[in-house]
Amino acid sequence: MPGLAERVNSLKASSTVAFAARAKELARQGVDVISMTAGEPDFLPPEHVLEAAREALRLGLTKYTATEGTAELREAVAAKFKRENGLTYAPDQVLVSNGGKQTLYNAFMSVIEPGDEVVMVAPYWVSYPAQVQLAGGVPVVVTARAEDGFVPDLADVRAAITPRTKVLLINSPSNPTGAVFPPELVRGFAELAEEHDLWLFSDDLYEHLVYDGKFTTAAAYVPHRTLVVHGASKGYALTGWRIGFGAGPKPLIAAMNRLQGQSTSGANSLAQHATVAALNEVEKTAAFQAMTRAAYRERRDVLVTGLNRLGLSTPLPAGAFYVMTDTTAIDPDEERAAIKLLDEARVAVVPGTDFLAPGKVRMSYATSLEQVREALQRIEALLG
Amino acid sequence: MPGLAERVNSLKASSTVAFAARAKELARQGVDVISMTAGEPDFLPPEHVLEAAREALRLGLTKYTATEGTAELREAVAAKFKRENGLTYAPDQVLVSNGGKQTLYNAFMSVIEPGDEVVMVAPYWVSYPAQVQLAGGVPVVVTARAEDGFVPDLADVRAAITPRTKVLLINSPSNPTGAVFPPELVRGFAELAEEHDLWLFSDDLYEHLVYDGKFTTAAAYVPHRTLVVHGASKGYALTGWRIGFGAGPKPLIAAMNRLQGQSTSGANSLAQHATVAALNEVEKTAAFQAMTRAAYRERRDVLVTGLNRLGLSTPLPAGAFYVMTDTTAIDPDEERAAIKLLDEARVAVVPGTDFLAPGKVRMSYATSLEQVREALQRIEALLG
Repeated sequence: MPGLAERVNSLKASSTVAFAARAKELARQGVDVISMTAGEPDFLPPEHVLEAAREALRLGLTKYTATEGTAELREAVAAKFKRENGLTYAPDQVLVSNGGKQTLYNAFMSVIEPGDEVVMVAPYWVSYPAQVQLAGGVPVVVTARAEDGFVPDLADVRAAITPRTKVLLINSPSNPTGAVFPPELVRGFAELAEEHDLWLFSDDLYEHLVYDGKFTTAAAYVPHRTLVVHGASKGYALTGWRIGFGAGPKPLIAAMNRLQGQSTSGANSLAQHATVAALNEVEKTAAFQAMTRAAYRERRDVLVTGLNRLGLSTPLPAGAFYVMTDTTAIDPDEERAAIKLLDEARVAVVPGTDFLAPGKVRMSYATSLEQVREALQRIEALLG
Repeated sequence: MPGLAERVNSLKASSTVAFAARAKELARQGVDVISMTAGEPDFLPPEHVLEAAREALRLGLTKYTATEGTAELREAVAAKFKRENGLTYAPDQVLVSNGGKQTLYNAFMSVIEPGDEVVMVAPYWVSYPAQVQLAGGVPVVVTARAEDGFVPDLADVRAAITPRTKVLLINSPSNPTGAVFPPELVRGFAELAEEHDLWLFSDDLYEHLVYDGKFTTAAAYVPHRTLVVHGASKGYALTGWRIGFGAGPKPLIAAMNRLQGQSTSGANSLAQHATVAALNEVEKTAAFQAMTRAAYRERRDVLVTGLNRLGLSTPLPAGAFYVMTDTTAIDPDEERAAIKLLDEARVAVVPGTDFLAPGKVRMSYATSLEQVREALQRIEALLG
């Protein structure tokens, strides 16, 4: 067999392989494990969105769409940004992709030259550094501290900027920490981007999952250099449908569209039609989001209170559906702690290793309140 | 605004911009144009596949699938290759992607180092050279001649191989020419790949659209170095659903999966479930394919006979749903010829420019027989 390219050889396999193998083995044995690993809502999509998908089948919307997405969906996306964020985009400033992950991949591939640096906050979503490296760039990491609720210090961000910096990346609410950046911090990122002539990529996927305080998009401050990365997955419970969208300066969107046209082309046509309903049927969607938000909030409160009561230090995150929990009381090594939680408490969590969160694990509360309560009891028994 | 990366700046915009703008303007004016530009079946997907999509909605199959695709779909793909092609793949030798285009993009990104050469046959599908260049590689073109029915000469392929060659690319039936390579030629590609230790990428998307002779996949000869690129779009009329699949050596599939996991993750969950039905409900799908094949064949015969009768030299292609027509009698420049066909005959075709087919246009007969006949009358009037 001929060889493979260095770019894929160097793509890090997950460092939590031992943990994943163990979780799989327990599942195979039919052991009753409470899974707190999910990166997606446990809710079904709202009925009006399912109905729109059925309608798409009835209408025979089964052909290729334009690479950039249907006109209807790009208009619905632009209307969402206007309505919810006060941002004005023309439809040709919007690109629909196969998930928010592709939106971001397109963006890095469109701006990063070999050696360009991207400043990102850790603990981070694992695909950030991988995508930067695939584009030939260098991830530069600013660490947010648990004692600050994983909200980074702007001085650390400033100190990370060099003449090779090309992009500042902001993700609030954050996966994996749930941290929501206050408006003045978001504005600080924007001012740094302006001062140093940088791109600002704002990963806003968790916009609709904020429980305390207020969501702020970086595009509010410097729209001419900001790419908003968004999608239908998290706020609309449409994960498997693979609809992401980006909005930003026209030349960047056009470049991302050229890349997408040669690498994958347009997203699924049925899912695009359904997402139009998710965005345009405003009241129904708002009711769905209010319902899910209330459920997540209650679970979060129970989980964070419970973990801290057990001595597992856990900041109260203001958004998303994750908490980062200090597990050094179980084992100083987070992967061994996760295996112990799995084997002895039958609670599956994600070791922080790949998020650059040593000594910590990510617990998702995108599961029922009963499961959250049961998980706490099991962990209490483990800590005994 | 900060700058863009060279890789997207150098991504060629279509050279047929003037033509596309003119076609759009006529459509806007509501002019009655017969479109022969389609790269997709004009049929709806078969009913059992639509029903499977409705079932996916009823079952709530709306969550993320594994990046590599559902186990059910990968097993169905492996079973298809066994049943139809006599090829044996384990499920972990199969990767499901967001369309066959992504399958191929993943593959080039997984094997091409800067400067590596990929030998491909022109006239070619426009994404081939673009994808090779995105991966840092160099397209090396072998030209197939109209007088040979656009079937390349193996001696030309051999002469194109250098020490930098990494991949031989084969596409039969071909988009845009419809040429079907005879088994001995496919075997010749395989022998060259073996002799020079090359990857062989076999784009088999049009497998089910062969009217004369027999389809042969390159994987039949050297499976240990062949990637089969396939998908649900062409043979199953599922273009907008974006399901591609690749099958090949496990290390290559694993590398492609790592890349996909960081760039887009899994394909649409509903479409994966529907594609299982397309592959597994063998008799229903075979009946659908027989029906569409008969329709395409009749249109092809009418179109090719008609064009040649009008003095527009057109080889009879054995597969796909395209013909390549010599339009030098209309204008020596294929783009001007296409604009003349559009403006004066109100027939839209694709100029061969981007396919590296000077003096020729691609006409798709994925449209009704009535439209094919009407197009011929309009062209006759133009030439008359």
